[in-house]
Amino acid sequence: MTGKYDLLDAIFHPKSIAFVGVTTSNPLHWTRTFWDSAREFQFEGPMYPVNPRGGELDGYKVYRSVDEIPGNIDYAICTVSAKIAPEIVRKCAAKGAKAVHFCTAGFAETGGADVTELQQELVATASETGVRIIGPNCMGIYCPESRLSYDTCFSKQSGNVGFISQSGGNSIYTIREANWRGVKFSKVVSIGNACDLNESDFLEYMIEDPQTRIIALYLEGVRDGKRFRQLLERASLQKTVVMVKGGGGEAGARATASHTASLAGNDVIWDALCRQLNVIKPKNMEEMVDVLTTLRFMPAFKGRNVLLVGPGGGASVMLTDEFERRGFKLPAVTDKIREELLGFSQAAGNMLLNPIDYSQSMQDPGSMHKAIQLLTKWKEVDFCVGFFRPSQMTNGFLDMVRKADDMVNQAFSASFKPVAYIVESAVTATRQAIAFEMAQKVVASGKPVFYSFAAAAEALRLVADYNKRKISRL
Amino acid sequence: MTGKYDLLDAIFHPKSIAFVGVTTSNPLHWTRTFWDSAREFQFEGPMYPVNPRGGELDGYKVYRSVDEIPGNIDYAICTVSAKIAPEIVRKCAAKGAKAVHFCTAGFAETGGADVTELQQELVATASETGVRIIGPNCMGIYCPESRLSYDTCFSKQSGNVGFISQSGGNSIYTIREANWRGVKFSKVVSIGNACDLNESDFLEYMIEDPQTRIIALYLEGVRDGKRFRQLLERASLQKTVVMVKGGGGEAGARATASHTASLAGNDVIWDALCRQLNVIKPKNMEEMVDVLTTLRFMPAFKGRNVLLVGPGGGASVMLTDEFERRGFKLPAVTDKIREELLGFSQAAGNMLLNPIDYSQSMQDPGSMHKAIQLLTKWKEVDFCVGFFRPSQMTNGFLDMVRKADDMVNQAFSASFKPVAYIVESAVTATRQAIAFEMAQKVVASGKPVFYSFAAAAEALRLVADYNKRKISRL
Repeated sequence: MTGKYDLLDAIFHPKSIAFVGVTTSNPLHWTRTFWDSAREFQFEGPMYPVNPRGGELDGYKVYRSVDEIPGNIDYAICTVSAKIAPEIVRKCAAKGAKAVHFCTAGFAETGGADVTELQQELVATASETGVRIIGPNCMGIYCPESRLSYDTCFSKQSGNVGFISQSGGNSIYTIREANWRGVKFSKVVSIGNACDLNESDFLEYMIEDPQTRIIALYLEGVRDGKRFRQLLERASLQKTVVMVKGGGGEAGARATASHTASLAGNDVIWDALCRQLNVIKPKNMEEMVDVLTTLRFMPAFKGRNVLLVGPGGGASVMLTDEFERRGFKLPAVTDKIREELLGFSQAAGNMLLNPIDYSQSMQDPGSMHKAIQLLTKWKEVDFCVGFFRPSQMTNGFLDMVRKADDMVNQAFSASFKPVAYIVESAVTATRQAIAFEMAQKVVASGKPVFYSFAAAAEALRLVADYNKRKISRL
Repeated sequence: MTGKYDLLDAIFHPKSIAFVGVTTSNPLHWTRTFWDSAREFQFEGPMYPVNPRGGELDGYKVYRSVDEIPGNIDYAICTVSAKIAPEIVRKCAAKGAKAVHFCTAGFAETGGADVTELQQELVATASETGVRIIGPNCMGIYCPESRLSYDTCFSKQSGNVGFISQSGGNSIYTIREANWRGVKFSKVVSIGNACDLNESDFLEYMIEDPQTRIIALYLEGVRDGKRFRQLLERASLQKTVVMVKGGGGEAGARATASHTASLAGNDVIWDALCRQLNVIKPKNMEEMVDVLTTLRFMPAFKGRNVLLVGPGGGASVMLTDEFERRGFKLPAVTDKIREELLGFSQAAGNMLLNPIDYSQSMQDPGSMHKAIQLLTKWKEVDFCVGFFRPSQMTNGFLDMVRKADDMVNQAFSASFKPVAYIVESAVTATRQAIAFEMAQKVVASGKPVFYSFAAAAEALRLVADYNKRKISRL
């Protein structure tokens, strides 16, 4: 533990917060996001809304200026216009603030000389006053254990994933989607232009943070390549690291420059570095969520042998293709196991190979339970994947298959090997509702849920590669 | 037009149908699928339910046997057990049937010697009686213009896509999903084990069928490779052909054998053949639907220059990456166009590059309309892609962005170049409903809708490659 660690830890656990620039008139205005979230999360310390108009907000006195706040503040979340940012920093410094988060955009990312200067002035003010800056142009901190959030809908539960994101939107996407699938976060920080505290500072903190076991990164570029590389190596040796790198191409680089004033760097270099350090590198945020879900719910599986279970011949073939294309194997069920299976199920023989199409067999829960136990005890199987695809069924089949899938999901809980479940969405409203309900059941039963055959196979490939390299690195 | 064409055409347009084996007792039983669909589609010719128990079904007399049907029948849909299949063929032949469709499974696909013999007997009976067989182990025909369907939910409208599928489930998935996105079919046939009429017979028919402009194929294997290859070449010269090939790997081959008794063949050979013939080859059914949607709604675009429009910096970077990774270019908006844009919008300058992040600009419909016109008149742009991603927004932003996206979708209708729209689904129930509504609006406005950044970029890549090769083949 270092002084730097303690400072960052204090920033993630503020004792009091000023909400500078929060709107009192319009409850739907975006500046209310932080205030509403702190209220929803029941932040325990003092909260001070600040707005030149004064008045009252949710029963709290609104201060016309940071100066007017009685006593000290620990942290400030600012949604004020860019040009007054340095002044706000000075005022917060006078009140003893350790850090100020500027959600405000309109700094260096716009490319204008005047606003780039403004950002430089902000950095100088921070350095002069000792106040640290988060942002500008970002969503700041989400830390369930300190009841700090930037969306009212994020989970109030803590988990083991730390997440540093250069994009606020991509972080919101990831947190919401991952939360729904049962993944919880220890600390998240959306860093935007990262003019003062940057990705390396937060990465260093998360390496040391005992609550964080998995470090997720969405980066468009890094400020100090050498330092970041060293930290990434340390992180990869101590924790599991998952990184999405945005803006690898020509227009992508242009987009990251205008998004967070970042220099994106070459994709090939990042790919090589991640392979070398065994950093999992999904291509996009969807895959990031899929990987986090896999890491959360699937204990490290030993090999690439998969058992596939689901209704429908054509769907089974498609799922098999997705796995085989990625170097997985489907061991053929042996005659011995097949005979045992036939001993307690009325199954048609052809359905007991692998993939296992149960649509015409094993309609009773007891035999499905026994079948899953028997098949997952088998040493040739490293993990199991089930699936439900409501769009492939006529109305006549849907109800039957829905019940059967429910049963498979339950039987999967008896598996001796890690399991995953795919629940594909569907177009009609009824089927959407059915898929949604099925996905909820999978999540509630503590299994990883995926939304497409390809998505599941790709996430499992990324994690299988990681598991394999991890062993060879030991 | 050949005698063969006329026969197949007659099979797709039966004048009367016997439903042999339809259950009268349980309205949810799968054997009711065909009967219910014919009723829902208001099939115009005589319909004869056949079941040994007799009685009545939906006010129709149920015949105890095919023999008892008064007069002739043109076509029979059979859901009887495999062992009586040859006998049914003989009875149907006596009634003048041109073809019999066996939905019934339990033939050669089970791998049993007895049932493989049964399938051979079925083929012999067909040959002897002159009745043609569809299947067994399949869903048969969907042909909106003759009011024949195998699902009550399929569209009643005809389109220009002919589809031959070895898998019933994969065909149902494709039809449902494509229908919802505005793609309509001329003729679909699910062929299963294809013991008599096979993929080549139907492909030959669809090449000649004037209603069919696009031929979609889901195949696990072909019976007569040489004939099929010749037909595929003819098809590819006269129409647009899209093929998904299932079961390329080792277990995939095992799965196709047990699914439709097919020999799958090598993936590499199929890839090479499709490239040579300019057959579009998506990896799976999701991509098949994406490609059909693209072909339906996007006039052949000339090049690979794309203009991306949507809310959120991080999302814009991610979408840019998906396109650049696949060889597309995002031309940088010129200073001249940018000045023109700034003339009528209150936009921040940085948002007018490409990708265009409109979340902080162009909030009024008029200027968005003008901006899209201006940008799509620009010769550097070949097509436009908009996107809506509800999961990336806090509650505070959602409503604003939803309105803005609605506006962009409307403004896109003024585009001088082909357009596509991505509407990502989202996890919470509210956001799911919002995404669903937005997707419906896109479909209603006659645009192709995609469900993820990667899916859109991949479908557009497949079609861009096709368009390019098509020109070089001329």
